[in-house]
Amino acid sequence: MSANTFGKLFSVTTFGESHGPAIGCVVDGCPPGLALTPDDFRHDLARRATGKTRHTSARHEADEVEILSGVYEGLTTGTPIALLIRNTDQRSKDYAKIAEQFRPGHADYTYWQKYGIRDPRGGGRSSARETTMRVAAGVIAKKWLAQRYGVRVQGFMSQIGDITPAGYDLTVVEDNPFFWPHAAQVDALEAYMDALRKSGDSVGARVDVIADGLPPGWGEPIYGKLDGELAAALMSINAVKGVEIGDGFASVAQLGSEHRDHMAASGFASNHAGGILGGISTGQPLRCSTAFKPTSSLRLPVDSLDIHGDTVEVITTGRHDPCVGIRATPICEAMVALVLIDQALRHRAQCGDVGDITPRIPGHVGG
Amino acid sequence: MSANTFGKLFSVTTFGESHGPAIGCVVDGCPPGLALTPDDFRHDLARRATGKTRHTSARHEADEVEILSGVYEGLTTGTPIALLIRNTDQRSKDYAKIAEQFRPGHADYTYWQKYGIRDPRGGGRSSARETTMRVAAGVIAKKWLAQRYGVRVQGFMSQIGDITPAGYDLTVVEDNPFFWPHAAQVDALEAYMDALRKSGDSVGARVDVIADGLPPGWGEPIYGKLDGELAAALMSINAVKGVEIGDGFASVAQLGSEHRDHMAASGFASNHAGGILGGISTGQPLRCSTAFKPTSSLRLPVDSLDIHGDTVEVITTGRHDPCVGIRATPICEAMVALVLIDQALRHRAQCGDVGDITPRIPGHVGG
Amino acid sequence: MSANTFGKLFSVTTFGESHGPAIGCVVDGCPPGLALTPDDFRHDLARRATGKTRHTSARHEADEVEILSGVYEGLTTGTPIALLIRNTDQRSKDYAKIAEQFRPGHADYTYWQKYGIRDPRGGGRSSARETTMRVAAGVIAKKWLAQRYGVRVQGFMSQIGDITPAGYDLTVVEDNPFFWPHAAQVDALEAYMDALRKSGDSVGARVDVIADGLPPGWGEPIYGKLDGELAAALMSINAVKGVEIGDGFASVAQLGSEHRDHMAASGFASNHAGGILGGISTGQPLRCSTAFKPTSSLRLPVDSLDIHGDTVEVITTGRHDPCVGIRATPICEAMVALVLIDQALRHRAQCGDVGDITPRIPGHVGG
Amino acid sequence: MSANTFGKLFSVTTFGESHGPAIGCVVDGCPPGLALTPDDFRHDLARRATGKTRHTSARHEADEVEILSGVYEGLTTGTPIALLIRNTDQRSKDYAKIAEQFRPGHADYTYWQKYGIRDPRGGGRSSARETTMRVAAGVIAKKWLAQRYGVRVQGFMSQIGDITPAGYDLTVVEDNPFFWPHAAQVDALEAYMDALRKSGDSVGARVDVIADGLPPGWGEPIYGKLDGELAAALMSINAVKGVEIGDGFASVAQLGSEHRDHMAASGFASNHAGGILGGISTGQPLRCSTAFKPTSSLRLPVDSLDIHGDTVEVITTGRHDPCVGIRATPICEAMVALVLIDQALRHRAQCGDVGDITPRIPGHVGG
Repeated sequence: MSANTFGKLFSVTTFGESHGPAIGCVVDGCPPGLALTPDDFRHDLARRATGKTRHTSARHEADEVEILSGVYEGLTTGTPIALLIRNTDQRSKDYAKIAEQFRPGHADYTYWQKYGIRDPRGGGRSSARETTMRVAAGVIAKKWLAQRYGVRVQGFMSQIGDITPAGYDLTVVEDNPFFWPHAAQVDALEAYMDALRKSGDSVGARVDVIADGLPPGWGEPIYGKLDGELAAALMSINAVKGVEIGDGFASVAQLGSEHRDHMAASGFASNHAGGILGGISTGQPLRCSTAFKPTSSLRLPVDSLDIHGDTVEVITTGRHDPCVGIRATPICEAMVALVLIDQALRHRAQCGDVGDITPRIPGHVGG
Repeated sequence: MSANTFGKLFSVTTFGESHGPAIGCVVDGCPPGLALTPDDFRHDLARRATGKTRHTSARHEADEVEILSGVYEGLTTGTPIALLIRNTDQRSKDYAKIAEQFRPGHADYTYWQKYGIRDPRGGGRSSARETTMRVAAGVIAKKWLAQRYGVRVQGFMSQIGDITPAGYDLTVVEDNPFFWPHAAQVDALEAYMDALRKSGDSVGARVDVIADGLPPGWGEPIYGKLDGELAAALMSINAVKGVEIGDGFASVAQLGSEHRDHMAASGFASNHAGGILGGISTGQPLRCSTAFKPTSSLRLPVDSLDIHGDTVEVITTGRHDPCVGIRATPICEAMVALVLIDQALRHRAQCGDVGDITPRIPGHVGG
Repeated sequence: MSANTFGKLFSVTTFGESHGPAIGCVVDGCPPGLALTPDDFRHDLARRATGKTRHTSARHEADEVEILSGVYEGLTTGTPIALLIRNTDQRSKDYAKIAEQFRPGHADYTYWQKYGIRDPRGGGRSSARETTMRVAAGVIAKKWLAQRYGVRVQGFMSQIGDITPAGYDLTVVEDNPFFWPHAAQVDALEAYMDALRKSGDSVGARVDVIADGLPPGWGEPIYGKLDGELAAALMSINAVKGVEIGDGFASVAQLGSEHRDHMAASGFASNHAGGILGGISTGQPLRCSTAFKPTSSLRLPVDSLDIHGDTVEVITTGRHDPCVGIRATPICEAMVALVLIDQALRHRAQCGDVGDITPRIPGHVGG
Repeated sequence: MSANTFGKLFSVTTFGESHGPAIGCVVDGCPPGLALTPDDFRHDLARRATGKTRHTSARHEADEVEILSGVYEGLTTGTPIALLIRNTDQRSKDYAKIAEQFRPGHADYTYWQKYGIRDPRGGGRSSARETTMRVAAGVIAKKWLAQRYGVRVQGFMSQIGDITPAGYDLTVVEDNPFFWPHAAQVDALEAYMDALRKSGDSVGARVDVIADGLPPGWGEPIYGKLDGELAAALMSINAVKGVEIGDGFASVAQLGSEHRDHMAASGFASNHAGGILGGISTGQPLRCSTAFKPTSSLRLPVDSLDIHGDTVEVITTGRHDPCVGIRATPICEAMVALVLIDQALRHRAQCGDVGDITPRIPGHVGG
């Protein structure tokens, strides 16, 4: 029930403020016997990390994960896995001024209205720093899903501003700082981002995630639908304003004869649905898409309010990405993985494990 | 934890299959002392009802709600409120054939793969008939929110196929069968739908919901965010493929200087955020949008599969709307109301009630 | 999260007041494919039913269960199973007087203080009538546990007033109205109860439940322990004031060398623990015990208070058992079964199913 | 849903193994604005601490709590409060032998059977070391309950072996190492414990907790009853085998005319119920009692089993209390406080805060 907990059976509880002593999480419900070391977290945390390119902000944190519990001699034991990252880059600066101001587009105003108190340092709890622990927890989920079921989760950026990919080659996604699926556009994106940064402004982004290898049958009707939980998971990421499954909003202008995916013995003929029907996986690749708003922290001045009700001018001088979406790909992947592992565990609770069940349809492998 | 339960403190558990004996729900957590009679449900159930116009399917059900518990002498008592609707229009027909076929675009295949058994009559549990109980539960939520906080939730259709409103006048929404906000377009929509129905095909729709009157401070970071829960709520409705908050996917192509909403002592200058920052309400009107795919049940034949793995041709002959989105407006409203009441109760649990708290910002009313 | 819901994965939500239109429950999470008909409920509902003997109150209700959903052609489908029992024996009488009085030992006063409103007819929601649905839900749990794992749950009465069994023969429990495990004492119990009823007074009781056949490994540390959940389940039954696992309070005066159960290759040498160590089943028979207070509704007058703060004399004239514990045996069994099925499902979610796991200890069958 | 989480609205998630790097917890849902510093934890942690007297084991840990999040400038912010205690006294020793043995009376066997892997160092997750974090979380709950509602929670020992208090003077409880309510017996208890320790054996204990100051109305029917949740909370403590509310098991032999508490305008005439009726607080002092089994780790050898299925002789040589109950008083208090704060928040969610409600009964203060 904790609002800082995600997942029913594979539960992730995160804690920590941007500039507090540490951030961390407790992962409960992980199956026992999974090999896990601090090294497992390095790759995805680096993918998410600030300072990776000149297009992302320059916070230099090691983000070294300490495993505090739940692992014995390199294997998970079934007890809660606590992960901790110390905040080493807590710049001492005077927060007195910003403590009384509400930055437009940020959660300053709403936290103040809700709680009557807030930690103003770096956005406090509302900072995207919290997503570090989502990525860490997602590493565990991804690893188990891959080993147990062969599930693979991959994200990429599908739009920055009004630029969309001229092609989709997922093998090049990890080779550029934008997680962009078309190598020939990377130079243009670099130029676009440089110009944007110089202007002091920012822009939005769209991130897609594909998961393949999942069996048919994951997802729980009615309020625990796979797509419903993906929507909650992705919408809970900082700066997200929209979520689509499969064809998403494009479905509005489609005809039924076009949208519905025909089926044959060899599988589905198309995947407008994005791998989910009735809230349950079809066995096809899962496809979802997430809209990120532009960064709200800008060097450009803006009118705002302070806690006394007075008008103030706010200018953000610190480090900030001109496009928060750039670092969002591993976060989106993590949230998809967290949804999938939770549904996988729930499925085997109620229906038995995949493979325990006689294949439902003779000669048919699903998907 | 039940997958058929929505909400943490104002919990709605629905049950029932499309052609089973009855559908119903249990609403737990409703504050005591709210006046409630069967009459309260009539208006919204009629708005949702099939058979309202020639554009929606012709199932003629009274949908009379029986209150089985939780109300004494016309007032809620704080104990669970069970609502029941008998399914009176269960046409006797031969389901033997469709019991073995998977209709493309439907949950037939996935329920079969998940459970190894399914109720094939009218889609069983996956039928949109379930949404009747969402609307019923939403009636209670709307009524309490209106009386206690003055919150008002109103939906309208914002797109059918590629037709969008030429204007937005919410006072006309209830005067036409499409919940369309521009009266001058209604005749054209009628013609469009008639042509569509003749063709045997269907089309998607988009529904917007606006909620005003809510105070700042509702919503729980991080995984209980107001927008995260709206996304889950709306995505859990049958046929939904996308959810947006505020500017949604349009934010991707916006600049930060454009998107972030300036603040002054008199309030926010704009509402790109849709009334939510950091997962918490700002006090501005809440704005969200939902994409519905086109109806999958068509008179047009389509290739599919049966449970033996053989190819079959499926033709749907029964009653079906050419646009499922037409009846979705009250359902979307209900889900928004259910999210809001739950957050309202959670807010006063942790932070005290609105009004108990000294106004945070002198001379400022919020929003 | 609903306070009227029991269980995390096998969730039972009950509703209904003693003299309202109906009582019912929604069982969600039941595995698909279990055979289930209204007949399945008859035996246990009859065991619990009022009017069974002259020692229990004379409410004559058929308690016929209607299955509203979740079952298709006699098999559970994995969707929520709603059960309904109409209250047919709602005597019309004047509740005006008791509506303003608080009966000592009852929940009248506390419901009034909590909600400011209550249904006074027959105790409303606080009536033991609610336990009918626990028994009904327990029937489903027992059936699945027996078929899937061979688990058998059996209760008996182990104390009435200060009378304890002179012997324990569980084969005679179902042959007498007290669920008493020693046939030779039944006549004396009859005489004791007759005298008690004549006196207008009542007495407490103790009920034991034994469950055997459960595998080692069920139960979740730390706050989801098997014994912790049994305690919650049993203490939630009306009139319960104490719960013990294994030797219970007798453990306080035991030495460690006496209490700890030695282990050998053939199994445990004793079972002081009651089949649970560290919150997890050992594979031995589960043993728990529950204390019921004496019935509070007596013909003997008692001073009390009314809602105006005035002193009143309360006399209960209606039908009431002189010992509420007599009918409690099937209720206790049901609650144990509900705890066990929930833990069984949670165990296979995290750890895989029993049998999927290589036997942990060579040549050892557990327990 | 995490099994390592306690509480619905005031949620406490604990983690950590006895000899792992650290233990800790995340407290979510704490109301904002509560003053909190590391000093607040010292008193209760010292009361629980090992090494306090020669009757408790000699583990010398500072148990210094670090607040990692959720507190800004000395006040809680409404975001999750993470608490951490490093395990400084991790003696390096050879665990190879005990890693393969099951100590009778411990969770070794059941963890092995459940997970197929366990951390054998000091009992791992099943160690009573976990209760340190319950006490820490309980400190926050107690402080808020005292400040907001004037609730006071006090425990004491009511039985060791077969010794019971000759009198009840709660003012002396904190003056002796046994939390014993009768000063004149303390010397005899010292002698008893010395003899017990010399014998190598151990004994059980009973701990009572009284909470006063709570208003009528806390507790949620039916499965969220105050007594049901107390039972779960107390039974989840290591070594607990029984829980009683009010007169508990003594109620079994009581008559109804004796047990039911008469009411007058001045309040209740007695408190057999222990302050709870129908699962809801009456406003009288809450009374509950908990049975602790004797310590299972003894110097006396015992037959047991190892993971290969072979018989072994187990002798515990390490530090262990001859009576685990001695340190349990602050743990029981903490669990009672955690139940109460959760119910307090849930009550004001559904029913509004105490004081918001017009006094239900004129001239009556409750209790």
